[in-house]
Amino acid sequence: MLTVFGSTALDTIRTPKKTLKNVLGGAATFAAISASFFTKPGLIAVVGSDFPKKYHTVLKNHLDLKGLTVLNGKTFRYDGKYDATMSVRETLKTELNVLADFKPTVPDAYKKSEFVYLANNDPEQNAKIIKEFDNVKFSMCDTIEFWIATKRNAVIKMIKSVDAVVINDEEAKLLTKEDNLIKCAKKMMSWGANYVVIKKGEHGALLFHEDVIFPSVGFSLESVVDPTGAGDSFAGAMIGHLAAKNKTSFSEIKKSIIYGNVMGSFAVEKYGLAGLTSLKKSDISKRIKQYEKMVTF
Amino acid sequence: MLTVFGSTALDTIRTPKKTLKNVLGGAATFAAISASFFTKPGLIAVVGSDFPKKYHTVLKNHLDLKGLTVLNGKTFRYDGKYDATMSVRETLKTELNVLADFKPTVPDAYKKSEFVYLANNDPEQNAKIIKEFDNVKFSMCDTIEFWIATKRNAVIKMIKSVDAVVINDEEAKLLTKEDNLIKCAKKMMSWGANYVVIKKGEHGALLFHEDVIFPSVGFSLESVVDPTGAGDSFAGAMIGHLAAKNKTSFSEIKKSIIYGNVMGSFAVEKYGLAGLTSLKKSDISKRIKQYEKMVTF
Repeated sequence: MLTVFGSTALDTIRTPKKTLKNVLGGAATFAAISASFFTKPGLIAVVGSDFPKKYHTVLKNHLDLKGLTVLNGKTFRYDGKYDATMSVRETLKTELNVLADFKPTVPDAYKKSEFVYLANNDPEQNAKIIKEFDNVKFSMCDTIEFWIATKRNAVIKMIKSVDAVVINDEEAKLLTKEDNLIKCAKKMMSWGANYVVIKKGEHGALLFHEDVIFPSVGFSLESVVDPTGAGDSFAGAMIGHLAAKNKTSFSEIKKSIIYGNVMGSFAVEKYGLAGLTSLKKSDISKRIKQYEKMVTF
Repeated sequence: MLTVFGSTALDTIRTPKKTLKNVLGGAATFAAISASFFTKPGLIAVVGSDFPKKYHTVLKNHLDLKGLTVLNGKTFRYDGKYDATMSVRETLKTELNVLADFKPTVPDAYKKSEFVYLANNDPEQNAKIIKEFDNVKFSMCDTIEFWIATKRNAVIKMIKSVDAVVINDEEAKLLTKEDNLIKCAKKMMSWGANYVVIKKGEHGALLFHEDVIFPSVGFSLESVVDPTGAGDSFAGAMIGHLAAKNKTSFSEIKKSIIYGNVMGSFAVEKYGLAGLTSLKKSDISKRIKQYEKMVTF
């Protein structure tokens, strides 16, 4: 079984063509819903009493919600704006709201999860919660600039406590203080990560394990309408695939990276979560075949 | 047979660790020497009377020089400086010298070349010289920001006159006024290019042909000492491989892209041309095998 721990949010997303207000978002939401096409994940997250019923239904349709806490108050809110190229996002506002008081714990039903994904949460919280699981076979975490800037040592400790790190290229450089991505990965492995995945947006991702590198391309798209959640969808697909197969071999992890690239590509084709929630399993297997054909030489 | 037309230069290259003064460089030099590991290219270029004998020997060891003109005066010189990340190069000085007066023509011995590479020359000159060949099976051109900024219409006309364009991502966007690389490629194909190759530096390259995309990763390197000539080496390897095979099928063009990525990776591992000139053919086939193994999933 797979458990995903992280944020569920009400996002305001401003793209050059359209603004979405208070739509369902959050790193754990994207990751868990992406994973849900492979397995039924449990979600550890918090929402406020203002959380719309329709969004609760979306979560319930894809996820096990025994780990979802509802607290009195407002749901975590994020407001961000993309530039004309859609490659740079400026944060306009972050309201922690109920997230500030949330003391996450692992429900008994989730304690035997073999697969655990820790989204870009407070690294101290991530390192603490992973210890509450009894039977972890493969754990993976993400992190973001905010934690690297404010709690770098805790991020390094968190990396020691999991099997794999997924992180984007700029954050990998910031965290490790290295310019070259191989050097970044080596440093994270020296801190205790068995696998490092460096996400490069449209350029795909690099997987590192011991002295092996597996580079993969992104699935080329002619139109990107909303990049929000692409990296979370990538990570969710990876661990969702592994959990569904119940395998953690290097060869299966390489395949999970292909699923990551493909689910990331779906995520950015529509606004908000629609790129994922509108999917059928057959869409995914079709695009996986396209991807395999595309990269063959 | 393959003919390469373009610049031979004396470069001053300033990297954070080392400055090279007046070393052998130029787009055609890198492309032709890269191609020389697959076939013996003819070079159409000009140097001045100051061109060092040792560099003449380097060219002679790899290339047919019936197309090399020596004019009284100074060789074309370029002076550029890389920033700390080695990803941005600032041009400090460009002295055209003998290049300004050079009236290139195709030697009779080269007129029957089936493969022709036109480096990042004046697009009017490129479009003119390609007509002097009698028997072209596959022609390819590159271009740079300077020509896009000063002679955009001539660049578009040049693209109409060749089979394939190789161009880096930023220049593709600048030329086509599109943000998305698929849209960039479609526009260049609508101008008459049968194949478009968009180079993305360390991230590899995208090959476009009709409605098919072939994305490829770069060969990951831990240490890049001098990026000069990587793109030219990429293009030279592509067309060198095709000329050696005397094939222009889509499948062979895909393979040529892999050679491009591999030769580009060798080019940046040492200063100046040393990454290429120090190579043995066995180094190349070894890295091609590594590349194939690396991307397999």
